[in-house]
Amino acid sequence: MNPESIRKLFEEVRKGKVSPDDAVQRLRHLPFEDLGFAKVDHHRSLRMGMPEVIFGQGKAPAQVTQIFSRLAKHGGNVLVTRASEKQFAAVKSKNSKAEYRELACAIVLRKDKKKYGKGVIAVVSAGTSDIPVAEEAVVTAEIMGNDVEHLYDVGVAGIHRLLANREALTRARVIVVCAGMEGALPSVVGGMVGVPVIAVPTSVGYGAAFKGVAALLGMMNSCASNVSVVNIDNGFGAGYVASLINRL
Amino acid sequence: MNPESIRKLFEEVRKGKVSPDDAVQRLRHLPFEDLGFAKVDHHRSLRMGMPEVIFGQGKAPAQVTQIFSRLAKHGGNVLVTRASEKQFAAVKSKNSKAEYRELACAIVLRKDKKKYGKGVIAVVSAGTSDIPVAEEAVVTAEIMGNDVEHLYDVGVAGIHRLLANREALTRARVIVVCAGMEGALPSVVGGMVGVPVIAVPTSVGYGAAFKGVAALLGMMNSCASNVSVVNIDNGFGAGYVASLINRL
Amino acid sequence: MNPESIRKLFEEVRKGKVSPDDAVQRLRHLPFEDLGFAKVDHHRSLRMGMPEVIFGQGKAPAQVTQIFSRLAKHGGNVLVTRASEKQFAAVKSKNSKAEYRELACAIVLRKDKKKYGKGVIAVVSAGTSDIPVAEEAVVTAEIMGNDVEHLYDVGVAGIHRLLANREALTRARVIVVCAGMEGALPSVVGGMVGVPVIAVPTSVGYGAAFKGVAALLGMMNSCASNVSVVNIDNGFGAGYVASLINRL
Amino acid sequence: MNPESIRKLFEEVRKGKVSPDDAVQRLRHLPFEDLGFAKVDHHRSLRMGMPEVIFGQGKAPAQVTQIFSRLAKHGGNVLVTRASEKQFAAVKSKNSKAEYRELACAIVLRKDKKKYGKGVIAVVSAGTSDIPVAEEAVVTAEIMGNDVEHLYDVGVAGIHRLLANREALTRARVIVVCAGMEGALPSVVGGMVGVPVIAVPTSVGYGAAFKGVAALLGMMNSCASNVSVVNIDNGFGAGYVASLINRL
Amino acid sequence: MNPESIRKLFEEVRKGKVSPDDAVQRLRHLPFEDLGFAKVDHHRSLRMGMPEVIFGQGKAPAQVTQIFSRLAKHGGNVLVTRASEKQFAAVKSKNSKAEYRELACAIVLRKDKKKYGKGVIAVVSAGTSDIPVAEEAVVTAEIMGNDVEHLYDVGVAGIHRLLANREALTRARVIVVCAGMEGALPSVVGGMVGVPVIAVPTSVGYGAAFKGVAALLGMMNSCASNVSVVNIDNGFGAGYVASLINRL
Amino acid sequence: MNPESIRKLFEEVRKGKVSPDDAVQRLRHLPFEDLGFAKVDHHRSLRMGMPEVIFGQGKAPAQVTQIFSRLAKHGGNVLVTRASEKQFAAVKSKNSKAEYRELACAIVLRKDKKKYGKGVIAVVSAGTSDIPVAEEAVVTAEIMGNDVEHLYDVGVAGIHRLLANREALTRARVIVVCAGMEGALPSVVGGMVGVPVIAVPTSVGYGAAFKGVAALLGMMNSCASNVSVVNIDNGFGAGYVASLINRL
Amino acid sequence: MNPESIRKLFEEVRKGKVSPDDAVQRLRHLPFEDLGFAKVDHHRSLRMGMPEVIFGQGKAPAQVTQIFSRLAKHGGNVLVTRASEKQFAAVKSKNSKAEYRELACAIVLRKDKKKYGKGVIAVVSAGTSDIPVAEEAVVTAEIMGNDVEHLYDVGVAGIHRLLANREALTRARVIVVCAGMEGALPSVVGGMVGVPVIAVPTSVGYGAAFKGVAALLGMMNSCASNVSVVNIDNGFGAGYVASLINRL
Amino acid sequence: MNPESIRKLFEEVRKGKVSPDDAVQRLRHLPFEDLGFAKVDHHRSLRMGMPEVIFGQGKAPAQVTQIFSRLAKHGGNVLVTRASEKQFAAVKSKNSKAEYRELACAIVLRKDKKKYGKGVIAVVSAGTSDIPVAEEAVVTAEIMGNDVEHLYDVGVAGIHRLLANREALTRARVIVVCAGMEGALPSVVGGMVGVPVIAVPTSVGYGAAFKGVAALLGMMNSCASNVSVVNIDNGFGAGYVASLINRL
Repeated sequence: MNPESIRKLFEEVRKGKVSPDDAVQRLRHLPFEDLGFAKVDHHRSLRMGMPEVIFGQGKAPAQVTQIFSRLAKHGGNVLVTRASEKQFAAVKSKNSKAEYRELACAIVLRKDKKKYGKGVIAVVSAGTSDIPVAEEAVVTAEIMGNDVEHLYDVGVAGIHRLLANREALTRARVIVVCAGMEGALPSVVGGMVGVPVIAVPTSVGYGAAFKGVAALLGMMNSCASNVSVVNIDNGFGAGYVASLINRL
Repeated sequence: MNPESIRKLFEEVRKGKVSPDDAVQRLRHLPFEDLGFAKVDHHRSLRMGMPEVIFGQGKAPAQVTQIFSRLAKHGGNVLVTRASEKQFAAVKSKNSKAEYRELACAIVLRKDKKKYGKGVIAVVSAGTSDIPVAEEAVVTAEIMGNDVEHLYDVGVAGIHRLLANREALTRARVIVVCAGMEGALPSVVGGMVGVPVIAVPTSVGYGAAFKGVAALLGMMNSCASNVSVVNIDNGFGAGYVASLINRL
Repeated sequence: MNPESIRKLFEEVRKGKVSPDDAVQRLRHLPFEDLGFAKVDHHRSLRMGMPEVIFGQGKAPAQVTQIFSRLAKHGGNVLVTRASEKQFAAVKSKNSKAEYRELACAIVLRKDKKKYGKGVIAVVSAGTSDIPVAEEAVVTAEIMGNDVEHLYDVGVAGIHRLLANREALTRARVIVVCAGMEGALPSVVGGMVGVPVIAVPTSVGYGAAFKGVAALLGMMNSCASNVSVVNIDNGFGAGYVASLINRL
Repeated sequence: MNPESIRKLFEEVRKGKVSPDDAVQRLRHLPFEDLGFAKVDHHRSLRMGMPEVIFGQGKAPAQVTQIFSRLAKHGGNVLVTRASEKQFAAVKSKNSKAEYRELACAIVLRKDKKKYGKGVIAVVSAGTSDIPVAEEAVVTAEIMGNDVEHLYDVGVAGIHRLLANREALTRARVIVVCAGMEGALPSVVGGMVGVPVIAVPTSVGYGAAFKGVAALLGMMNSCASNVSVVNIDNGFGAGYVASLINRL
Repeated sequence: MNPESIRKLFEEVRKGKVSPDDAVQRLRHLPFEDLGFAKVDHHRSLRMGMPEVIFGQGKAPAQVTQIFSRLAKHGGNVLVTRASEKQFAAVKSKNSKAEYRELACAIVLRKDKKKYGKGVIAVVSAGTSDIPVAEEAVVTAEIMGNDVEHLYDVGVAGIHRLLANREALTRARVIVVCAGMEGALPSVVGGMVGVPVIAVPTSVGYGAAFKGVAALLGMMNSCASNVSVVNIDNGFGAGYVASLINRL
Repeated sequence: MNPESIRKLFEEVRKGKVSPDDAVQRLRHLPFEDLGFAKVDHHRSLRMGMPEVIFGQGKAPAQVTQIFSRLAKHGGNVLVTRASEKQFAAVKSKNSKAEYRELACAIVLRKDKKKYGKGVIAVVSAGTSDIPVAEEAVVTAEIMGNDVEHLYDVGVAGIHRLLANREALTRARVIVVCAGMEGALPSVVGGMVGVPVIAVPTSVGYGAAFKGVAALLGMMNSCASNVSVVNIDNGFGAGYVASLINRL
Repeated sequence: MNPESIRKLFEEVRKGKVSPDDAVQRLRHLPFEDLGFAKVDHHRSLRMGMPEVIFGQGKAPAQVTQIFSRLAKHGGNVLVTRASEKQFAAVKSKNSKAEYRELACAIVLRKDKKKYGKGVIAVVSAGTSDIPVAEEAVVTAEIMGNDVEHLYDVGVAGIHRLLANREALTRARVIVVCAGMEGALPSVVGGMVGVPVIAVPTSVGYGAAFKGVAALLGMMNSCASNVSVVNIDNGFGAGYVASLINRL
Repeated sequence: MNPESIRKLFEEVRKGKVSPDDAVQRLRHLPFEDLGFAKVDHHRSLRMGMPEVIFGQGKAPAQVTQIFSRLAKHGGNVLVTRASEKQFAAVKSKNSKAEYRELACAIVLRKDKKKYGKGVIAVVSAGTSDIPVAEEAVVTAEIMGNDVEHLYDVGVAGIHRLLANREALTRARVIVVCAGMEGALPSVVGGMVGVPVIAVPTSVGYGAAFKGVAALLGMMNSCASNVSVVNIDNGFGAGYVASLINRL
């Protein structure tokens, strides 16, 4: 064990067997990563409220359950994204406090219920098909200790619906916008507010939507300067980034 | 000449030199395209006001001038798209009535000034950089006999500018919308009106705009059902389609 | 209701309870979207005959039925695109007048049978595999109150079949052309007529057809100037745009 | 019937009821396509031995059978490409002389057994996974009346296998080369012979093979000048083109 | 002025010249955008310190100067991105306080020198070729009132350089990371800190870098959850988003 | 020299110094490529009339001249494709019989004027901008000893022009079709004839033409079965393949 | 048999029936590939330890078993990649010594257990989902006679985990790095060592990962100069190349 | 300075002011990167013969000269890739021993002339246009202390040229293969040898070559298992990887 070997070095210095200069020299050649690892752990402990996250898709229910149970022991919140009802049933049988967020296809275990976010995160989505992605962002932001408000079905082809919600948008400290097809919504929302907008392209659409590519390109080229973008269907990432911003 | 050869055949039938059955047989082997060609000519004459069009880009001034002069003799309107000032100077020296539409980079000769369009065509553009494309649509629609109204710099990131022009949009019988970058404007405009919207992606933007591809994909996936799309930077095509619709 | 609240404000002004200046101030903070919304409603009522549309694909039969029944109450026409026979059975059990258009995979409820279109819409398709998309355009145009004529299996590799139908094409006021593979048909049709052509790329083909991308690109680059394009397999969009044009 | 109507016109001319000039005028307005159609039919009859072809994929067995039976009545050869065993069973029950070519997934009915090809067509494939595509080319060429020789599993990573078959290649009058992955084989074969090479990219491979795109691009860029290319997996097209060449 | 016109309406109601019902009716037809516009103006005034921005690329020096001078009158900061030295010379001749930031290719006029950012923004870049993009982010963040620290040439292939700057990264409240080629730096930086990371793909690289596409895709797929992305070479956008976050 | 070493081996066998079995063994270890090389040379001499070809683009006039002069000594025809007038001037100064084919941008030296082709090759192009590519095919086919007929400006948007040339197409033994933009012409031509069609996509077009990609995809997916395709702008390749076919 | 025919030639030379010169002449026209083939065989025998490889995916269990059994008779090692448990069961029933490597989805038969590699091959993977690809590389390297060390789950977003394994990386003579998503790991590893790094992009990820394309592009553009790349998910290829390097 | 601070800690331990346990604890919180950096330096010194490399393209002659002079002081070899003659003139004026390798467009300063490579590196290229890339690999390998043999113009369309050089290929310990267009050469070479092959796609070609993409894809999908790939035109990278392998 490395802390031991360093302690031994210090002992030898104390006993005069090794001069301080030689000790520095020897320390220089010790693998620094052991120290680094400890540091990181410390650092981690500073990031309270961060959920332990499992990407559920493609994992067997038993596998999800096993990882879930191990992570649950750490005492923090646990989140399984892209989880099926089958996976939930398996997890639930071992962790009675786990809950299933159906719209988001997410399993959550919320032990740490402290509010870490300073304001409200608004999650906006263009069409009803974008809701699963939007809900993933909502669940992520909630489990990371934020108040979340959601505005759904306010796509740009019916701009009055969006305008009718201007107040809610103005209240938010950071906004997540999910949209498929042409992905135009973040530009319009971005132009209406003065806070950061996290855009999530969704794979909603067909033909030349190319499973979210059209929306992704649209968002990358947003004419609103306050927009940044995460991966297609990455509601989790958007909720995570928004949560970090809302803690500042 | 073909009509002659057919007349000759009829003469021979009349004179009894050729039986009707043989005549049918011989006619069957005549190249039908000559008849077809005539028909097409007739058809053409029905399409009054259609401009003769030259794609100027890449052609030498002398070449443009030569084609222009030949077409000008037909008596109809002539339009040179993507024309340089040099090309115009050359054309002007031979055709004193030719005019240069600077913003549109177009040379026009307008002899037929009849109004063919029944209502107003609105041409809308997102940013100032889209104006050359929008102006090409304007010039095309005007030379085809339409009243054109243009609304520029009404991009989606400042949605109030678009809303402030709702009346003008409502007045239009058909709308051309030009936008680069994310190409979101046609969806928003499309949602505000009940008339056909012709969307023109422009090559405005950089990086992931991919010279108009992002805008093109956005427009193909428009969530507004009244939007159809023409090629990148194809202001001429949009003005042409809009003109045909406005004649109906 | 919002008009009420504004009327109340006016009443208070009239009664001298509120000064005009304060009224302006209060009005400034009223959500303007209520006015806007009303305006939109008015506008909506002008667009009679527009069907309420449900995108059936991926929705459970019960879900489709529920939305269908709700929309059917509005008294207008209802259209479900990309609908399965299962979805139809469910819808039918609650809405006895719903019909299934098998070739188009569409469920329709036609209450408003008024003719809104002024002329004939021709729907042309290249191959037999393009028929479902073409039929979606046909059904959409019909439910929006148009006379529709369809010409199927007239692909460009047998150009005589297309020429044999020149008369029918010439009769149409607007034409929808559906084609997969190389998507060349709209160019040829476009060159034969003087009316707007709405091109629909279909995902028919294999290999380098890339699920409709080859056809889409072909149509975007059509050398016929009267062609505009909608999304891959978007028969509904083409029928919708054609209907709007045919009402002008 | 149209020939009738023309005959009637000639009769009227003969009887002096219609002057030749008027007849020309009336003829000008007759739909020329009827003549054209007849011409095409004539032309068709010159192309003896061409199979009637059905693209089987995605069609129901009953549907394939019905089309097959109708085509079989024309007296020529019939070919169903991408056919399943189920489709064959259905076809066989109605057309006892139909045969199933298992490797090619093709159903064939060969009534016209005349040799139309003047020399040998060689069909070469790179790997064993390319064989279905290669066999489709073989079957197509055979049913069109050609002697076919096939060389399989002679990919470029074992160049000696190809060299060992140089004689066979040299004997061929036209060569079809099928290859997936990097699609290099046509270049090597093309460099070894002085006859036309038809290259068929196959969708064999994974990852960056992109379902045949890598092979397609490789073949389009072949450094051998005698190579032309057909669509991915289009063994039929290659066999067809090769057959036309071999008839010259 | 619109508030005036509304006040007038209220006055007329008060005077009994207009009934409340008629007033509602008239209000309904007033362009609501005037209210909206006013609202936006208010909103605008809350966003102090936001620079007026000109995209310099492709504009004539005279054009830039004209826009610059107009914007400078508003009293706020002005920023010209992608500006040439020629453009600067022209601007300088009319606006003596304008400065040229050579590395960033930016012209700045900084009148409002208030600090709006609460912490430090770190701007990190992978290679020396990424510096222009990074400097654009730096200049943008500075003109928006932030303390900025930059760490250049700390690419992932020499990970120790990055580790040596861990302290500086830890100090930052939000981090902008610019990288071309494989675009891996944001993932590594993201994993080292607990604050939001704005990733900027740059067009640095050749061959399969595809002018920034490789970096863009890499960043979209970052395995670090705190990363969001802006357009290729969009240093301005990254600096803008970071500034908004740093104000929270 | 290798033939010597083999002769020596035979001498030793004759002299009884080496047994036949040992000789076989030793031969097995000789590098076979020396024999192979000779064989290839023989083969080459059988391919009379094939031009020596230089790809001119990017080469200095002196460099082209040097290669040209060396190849001219072989006594066969020489062809420089994509050649500038400057390159021609340099070549001409050393090779007085070289000619410049301006439309094709090709330098030709035709010593072997024998007719190798058995019929006529038709070269068809869609628009006037496609002519340089078409002319490259014409020059290539001519220098390889063929009668060539060309039909230009017969694009699909004016189908009657193509139909008017049906006779010429029917006369051809093999057809080259050059088209940019949507690349639809080969399909239409292919459907009108029963001979092989070599399609050449050209880089003519803009926007979504993607420098020939749209045309290339269109041609790969041609619904006419007698079409095969060469690289974008590869008039030379098409002329070459057509020539090989016409010799059969 | 060909060696026979050559022996006969030598016999005739020995008997004086054929002069050495004539023999050389006749040999020149014999197909050299027979000799070549023999040579290759020899060459093959020099490459001891190379496994016979079967690509299992898409093959029927019976088919895999048949090929496996035939190859097993050659006496060398046999490897089936992308093998299912069903395929293994079938193979095992006929080849009792075959083993299934579950994580790698590989069937192995290891008869030749000699060590051919001179040092250690390290196989590194970014995430747990990359393990199947990494294990395929491990199995391939082991069956080719190498000592393999694996380091899993050391992705770049937790750089300390990678640093903690610096020693292991330094020990390796060649390193295989598997990573999906942004594919950044090879660059970081490459920067830490002075030996060749073989990068394997994996199809792990979603959305803009495009099934491994993002990782592939990232690796192609690695800023570390010691990285070369194989196909997406091609763990076998990476293990093979690493093995060849480790034998040097 | 950090070593000082550590020395101080050791002094305190020696003096008994700090216990070994507390010292370990304090050390744990020191920034490890300073130690790490030293370690890296040591590591660097083990990699003798590695050239310092400058990417010349886009840099001003003065800039190149300045960096070159600084690196030259380190005493090792210096290499400037993609260097112009102008850059060389500038460098030469300050570093008289610098040489220009014209074909490779590289400036080299070779001080360390030791042989580090154990065998021969063969650099093979398909066409004459690939030579600049191939020469970059040659120069890189030479400056890193290797014997290099080059085989140029041995493309796959003339396979006999490659076969004629089989001996040379067999001699090599590692092979670099450069090819543009279809990029087939590495597969053929890979199949002829049993050593690692580094493939370099070049941007040679036009049309569907897409500036090296076709070649890159071809190489990624090579059916020869001993091939790995570097970036398009990256001759330096290939020479670097080959050199590392040749040192093993």
